[in-house]
Amino acid sequence: MNQTEDTIVALATANGVGAIGVIRLSGPEAIIIANSVFKGKDLTKQDSHTIHFGHVVDGGVILDEVLMSLFIAPKSYTRENVVEISCHGSNYIIESIIKLLIKKGARAARAGEFTMRAFLNGQLDLSQAEAVADLIAANSKAAQQAAMQQLRGGFSNQLQALREQLVTFASLVELELDFSEEDVEFANRGQLRQLVLDIERVIGKLIQSFELGNAIKQGVNTVIAGRPNAGKSTLLNALLNEDRAIVSHIPGTTRDTIEEVLNINGINFRLIDTAGIREATDTIEQIGVQKTMEKISQTAVLLYVYDANALSDADLANDIAELVKPGIPAIIVANKTDLLPASAAINLQLTDGTDLVEVSAKEKQHIDELKQLIYQRTVKGQLSADETLITNIRHLEALQRTEQALIRVLDGIANQVSSDFLAMDIKQGLHYLGEITGTVTTDDLLDNIFSRFCIGK
Amino acid sequence: MNQTEDTIVALATANGVGAIGVIRLSGPEAIIIANSVFKGKDLTKQDSHTIHFGHVVDGGVILDEVLMSLFIAPKSYTRENVVEISCHGSNYIIESIIKLLIKKGARAARAGEFTMRAFLNGQLDLSQAEAVADLIAANSKAAQQAAMQQLRGGFSNQLQALREQLVTFASLVELELDFSEEDVEFANRGQLRQLVLDIERVIGKLIQSFELGNAIKQGVNTVIAGRPNAGKSTLLNALLNEDRAIVSHIPGTTRDTIEEVLNINGINFRLIDTAGIREATDTIEQIGVQKTMEKISQTAVLLYVYDANALSDADLANDIAELVKPGIPAIIVANKTDLLPASAAINLQLTDGTDLVEVSAKEKQHIDELKQLIYQRTVKGQLSADETLITNIRHLEALQRTEQALIRVLDGIANQVSSDFLAMDIKQGLHYLGEITGTVTTDDLLDNIFSRFCIGK
Repeated sequence: MNQTEDTIVALATANGVGAIGVIRLSGPEAIIIANSVFKGKDLTKQDSHTIHFGHVVDGGVILDEVLMSLFIAPKSYTRENVVEISCHGSNYIIESIIKLLIKKGARAARAGEFTMRAFLNGQLDLSQAEAVADLIAANSKAAQQAAMQQLRGGFSNQLQALREQLVTFASLVELELDFSEEDVEFANRGQLRQLVLDIERVIGKLIQSFELGNAIKQGVNTVIAGRPNAGKSTLLNALLNEDRAIVSHIPGTTRDTIEEVLNINGINFRLIDTAGIREATDTIEQIGVQKTMEKISQTAVLLYVYDANALSDADLANDIAELVKPGIPAIIVANKTDLLPASAAINLQLTDGTDLVEVSAKEKQHIDELKQLIYQRTVKGQLSADETLITNIRHLEALQRTEQALIRVLDGIANQVSSDFLAMDIKQGLHYLGEITGTVTTDDLLDNIFSRFCIGK
Repeated sequence: MNQTEDTIVALATANGVGAIGVIRLSGPEAIIIANSVFKGKDLTKQDSHTIHFGHVVDGGVILDEVLMSLFIAPKSYTRENVVEISCHGSNYIIESIIKLLIKKGARAARAGEFTMRAFLNGQLDLSQAEAVADLIAANSKAAQQAAMQQLRGGFSNQLQALREQLVTFASLVELELDFSEEDVEFANRGQLRQLVLDIERVIGKLIQSFELGNAIKQGVNTVIAGRPNAGKSTLLNALLNEDRAIVSHIPGTTRDTIEEVLNINGINFRLIDTAGIREATDTIEQIGVQKTMEKISQTAVLLYVYDANALSDADLANDIAELVKPGIPAIIVANKTDLLPASAAINLQLTDGTDLVEVSAKEKQHIDELKQLIYQRTVKGQLSADETLITNIRHLEALQRTEQALIRVLDGIANQVSSDFLAMDIKQGLHYLGEITGTVTTDDLLDNIFSRFCIGK
């Protein structure tokens, strides 16, 4: 049976006790099945986008008082007939109603199946469908905005337009194959080269945006390192203090790491405290230092904290040399500066990609300055309302493969390769571009994408 | 400000990540506030019970794609204007939208405030409003049915009819006070007595139903007791085995008690295993036995299990004498009967309220028979589709107070007390009856009832 020929059902709202729960039916029989358990108006005779009060009954026994919301194809999320049943939020009632609907001919939906149908029926392209899952998982303003922009198709439209131009060239190049004996050139190589360069520029920018996009989606890893008593924990508290209401504990990937989340200008930063770095005198401490170094190597931003009153310039230079790695933005935080004599000046040669901030974590001085610096070093001016961010590793990989194919196309043009080789590389570029929006799909790809959704979406 | 003059907002669905979340607005400004954040059709010009697709925007920034469902007063749950916003089920998005609506003039709803408004606006009486909370908490068929019957008003209607008849008599008796010098009797004492007796009978039946009603709502405590190696745990497993899918662990009131829930014919039984009972040889064992005895004294049904091959008739009689208490239905379970010689017969004098079942827990013989017996001993024929069950302790107390007042009325009639005393007792009866349906309320009573609801209902 074709999967869109049957009618699927699932709870669309979160599990757990709430005032109401919403059960969603989608498919050709959605309204007929809903009507068969409904005591109230005849649902098959009602307009789309209307709501009807009544009872769900199972063989004369009333299961619940409900509201039935009707969406008649194609005016629905899936473009199929959809009924949303708003019932009392008891697990028992929800389960009973879903069981009853299954008895009446519906099938329990798989994860992401509603959105998959929306994609298969042309309501959303693939990257928009993926944005739906991102939107549901969004836990910060920036993540929500990135997902919303993707859902609204800005991203896809941009790629789609470029893809269509490339398709035109591909067909011209293919046409040349049919006339290969005559050595004609339908596709102007200069124009093709220019188009490929244009596409490459756009793709390059999208690829670059992944680092930030992914950080926004996952939260930006921000390791705090420094010697014992440098004031790391005090700094952590000072950073979190003003945002205590929106702070939460997120268990790390390893069970023993607890991270704190700090929201700066709508982006979530995952603050990771580390064991104090010192000359390791025994094996256990060596392991601790090793762990800290590992975390530093994986962080998006490093905060190195030191006691401006206690650390010698030489030790400071040493620590920085050891901890600051090229490619990872580092912020040197001179702490306890409220205790410095007025005449004291911090004397530090900053390397590239490194900033210095003087704070007093205890007195909460210059903490906001530090926050804004953390934000700027992460966002690097890339975040604006119009900017498209790649947040999905699948898209990144497809873009990277497209880029490689396009480089081969450029090489081919430069080396005047024959039309058939050129056509092959262009087609490969088209293939990978098409994978992003779902113009090109395989069942495996779809299963892989939609199985990550929650049931009911 | 009168609390129904403002517009309230809350998440109506369960917390947590789901495909969608539903935010509910209720109050005079509900549609205006929703419209002020909505990019789509003008919601103020749409019909009741219609659904509209569009975006929630905050100062030009799109927060989410949503569906707005409109319910125009009085055609809504609260009888006020209601808007339900169906958005993507991300906590961040839900919080952002609720914050935005509050900025636009709504107020965060308190627990149960939507249902309280439904009550205050005459949509539901008080016992129906309480049934809403019960319905949401319902976790078995019987609990759901009891709540649904209460919600549909069967219960209230019955009481209301009786109350109205009593009101008529009360006014007649009061009228006599105005003519007290003349010694007239407007209220026929014989008819009054008959009415009070009728009411008493109904109330008595309702009071009696509480035991079962409450058990259905909370789950029926079912203690399993017996000597070590009698096969208590095997019996527990045998009882649960066929229903494993709908069985769950419920942590007891004390942390160390884990109960298993067994559903028989739609009623949840909380099976409580106990430490084996034996001659206590040390203090710790004495405490264990004491705990078991305590649990037995609080159980609704007792299953006493013994090994039919090992226990002497004298020991069996001893155990039963010790464990079976008057008023608590007990089922004597002769276990391991598959190992009995064919000629063996169980010889036991059963006391009143005690049954005997022969089973083999290990071989799962006669387990279903035992289940049906547990069910029958609990339900005692009280459970039918038309039967009204009291499940709420507040109702029980009000009914008991009504009953006491009515007994005083009967005493008064019998002793020919003066009209003023009679009127006082009748009025007190009316007061307590009125408390159930909410004809008589106080702010404290309402706060007490609705604060137990979840937010959003």
